Amino acid sequence: MPDLSTWSCPLPLRDYPNIVMGHGGGGQLSSELVQHLFLPAFSNSALANLGDASVLARPQGRIAISTDSFVVRPLFFPGGTIGDLAVNGTVNDLSMIGATPLYLSAGFILEEGFPISDLARIVACMAEAARLAGVEIVTGDTKVVERGHGDGCYINTTGVGVVPDQVNIGPSRVCSGDVIIVSGHIADHGMAIMSVREGLEFESSILSDCAPLNDLARVLLQAGGSDRVHAMRDPTRGGLAATLQEIASASDVGVLIEEAAVPIRGETRSACELLGLDPLFVANEGKMVAFVDPSVANGVLSAMRNHPLGRDAAIIGTAVAERKGMVLAKTAIGGHRVIPIQLGEQLPRIC
Amino acid sequence: MPDLSTWSCPLPLRDYPNIVMGHGGGGQLSSELVQHLFLPAFSNSALANLGDASVLARPQGRIAISTDSFVVRPLFFPGGTIGDLAVNGTVNDLSMIGATPLYLSAGFILEEGFPISDLARIVACMAEAARLAGVEIVTGDTKVVERGHGDGCYINTTGVGVVPDQVNIGPSRVCSGDVIIVSGHIADHGMAIMSVREGLEFESSILSDCAPLNDLARVLLQAGGSDRVHAMRDPTRGGLAATLQEIASASDVGVLIEEAAVPIRGETRSACELLGLDPLFVANEGKMVAFVDPSVANGVLSAMRNHPLGRDAAIIGTAVAERKGMVLAKTAIGGHRVIPIQLGEQLPRIC
Repeated sequence: MPDLSTWSCPLPLRDYPNIVMGHGGGGQLSSELVQHLFLPAFSNSALANLGDASVLARPQGRIAISTDSFVVRPLFFPGGTIGDLAVNGTVNDLSMIGATPLYLSAGFILEEGFPISDLARIVACMAEAARLAGVEIVTGDTKVVERGHGDGCYINTTGVGVVPDQVNIGPSRVCSGDVIIVSGHIADHGMAIMSVREGLEFESSILSDCAPLNDLARVLLQAGGSDRVHAMRDPTRGGLAATLQEIASASDVGVLIEEAAVPIRGETRSACELLGLDPLFVANEGKMVAFVDPSVANGVLSAMRNHPLGRDAAIIGTAVAERKGMVLAKTAIGGHRVIPIQLGEQLPRIC
Repeated sequence: MPDLSTWSCPLPLRDYPNIVMGHGGGGQLSSELVQHLFLPAFSNSALANLGDASVLARPQGRIAISTDSFVVRPLFFPGGTIGDLAVNGTVNDLSMIGATPLYLSAGFILEEGFPISDLARIVACMAEAARLAGVEIVTGDTKVVERGHGDGCYINTTGVGVVPDQVNIGPSRVCSGDVIIVSGHIADHGMAIMSVREGLEFESSILSDCAPLNDLARVLLQAGGSDRVHAMRDPTRGGLAATLQEIASASDVGVLIEEAAVPIRGETRSACELLGLDPLFVANEGKMVAFVDPSVANGVLSAMRNHPLGRDAAIIGTAVAERKGMVLAKTAIGGHRVIPIQLGEQLPRIC
């Protein structure tokens, strides 16, 4: 694969260093963008056909589809870019239902004036993230909107994966007694975005945890067995709290977590305290939470800890028969607090 | 299906008549938007699971994927809305490679302040277009960006379809001697958009031709046989000219069309003349062009003319061995002109 991190345009893309409306027009400028920028980065046989759609192999299993648009601000942040976020976000959504992600589409909405060198950097990150996750970007689309009607670059990725016939994972399968495991430190992504936005900067640098979870999910399913792993989710927007609430309200249980057991890095906790944010509500982009049968909890936990993305995995609580639909946290001083459902998101545009 | 054209909110969506940042936050407001607006419109079992991804049946054949973002301005125009455009555009891209479209994802990027009643109207149009095309909207995503960083509503749709094993359609199969058929009047969509944009209005009302082409493509393939239908394309951005050029440059032929044979409505032609636009370059959203073996051309043409969307189908030219990669038009006065490749698009944001 060509190294696009130091990309400079071999042909001058008609001497336009920035995106112009014509790059979205379907004519020669669009074609040059595809030929000189997207194709070298995403090279694969399906994409090379350059049709409006790509034809792929007959999948072995049911198919799964997931879509996400990415509007993160800024586009480049400590530990990641909108490019790897766009790939990993959709890879992770597919992984959380037990699917093996195979193919991604990429739809760009670019603002007139956006530097082509920034686009090249984003595209290089997407290509690298796709390579790491083992997925192919097989079809794409680029639209350009006038200056003042976008924010540089928005990306939609839609993923297609296969789900083996016996795998059937979802919140409705969660039972009272299930053990809740989180794969590592929470709240890093949201705080990394905050650290560069609006002029806020912290002494220590917090990096986004942006990562593909498909391999960790595979290891987890292998260790627990697909009948005893009941639900998996990646706690992105709204953080761990929103994810636990979604699972509680879609199942027939209450969720009880031990606040002190939730892994949080010291610097992330300090940054949250400084800004008055609750880390349970701050977004992650490379973490997962699983509800598993108690009989396999320890096996799953040690399998996760042997995986590079699960080294800090921890049991944080259990599903309980009482307080159905609610999430409760046992606090450090021994009391219980109800984790409220938030109306919106305390940090907008973190993905 | 509920009638959403006269939609008014049963629950007051927390009394917000317009989109606020929190509608994209993954919390309670996001959830209300999904429960009260998207689910009633798009109702199907896959969507009802409300996971981050949807699991679907094992497809019978190879799968095809296509993606498109829609940034059309204005959102509502004569003959259509961004909603039916977003569904039909992706349905058509899949249809043109011989795929049967099955599933769509829908990704919304909404601007803070966008009226929820407008969103409901768009969503109702998407639901109706999906019903007409026989596809299901199985997964979705909503992001909200701050006022001044969007343009009301952008939509990405990504479609998944199946391609029967024997079907293999694409420009590389085009041969010299192939007959070129267009399914009806061209340039209506682009001129309908122009008629309402920038204060330009014509006496007669030109309607967008926005329509799903999957059934017409099926009829065409049935009439011609999948081995004798060599290429199909829907001439959207860049119009018929850009589509013919793409096919010419991706195959080993030249393209020769008879300008007088290209069907154009009188009012559309007048509007183009008034604005100095060449109708060959103006976008369509419900037309297709096919390159077929001469032995089946008449059969294909009459099959198309028996279909409601192909009543005005016409043979407009042939693929020739000379002038490889070029598109030539025989003009009304008997000369030939080269149809040039355009740099961009004469009418930005028509889809």
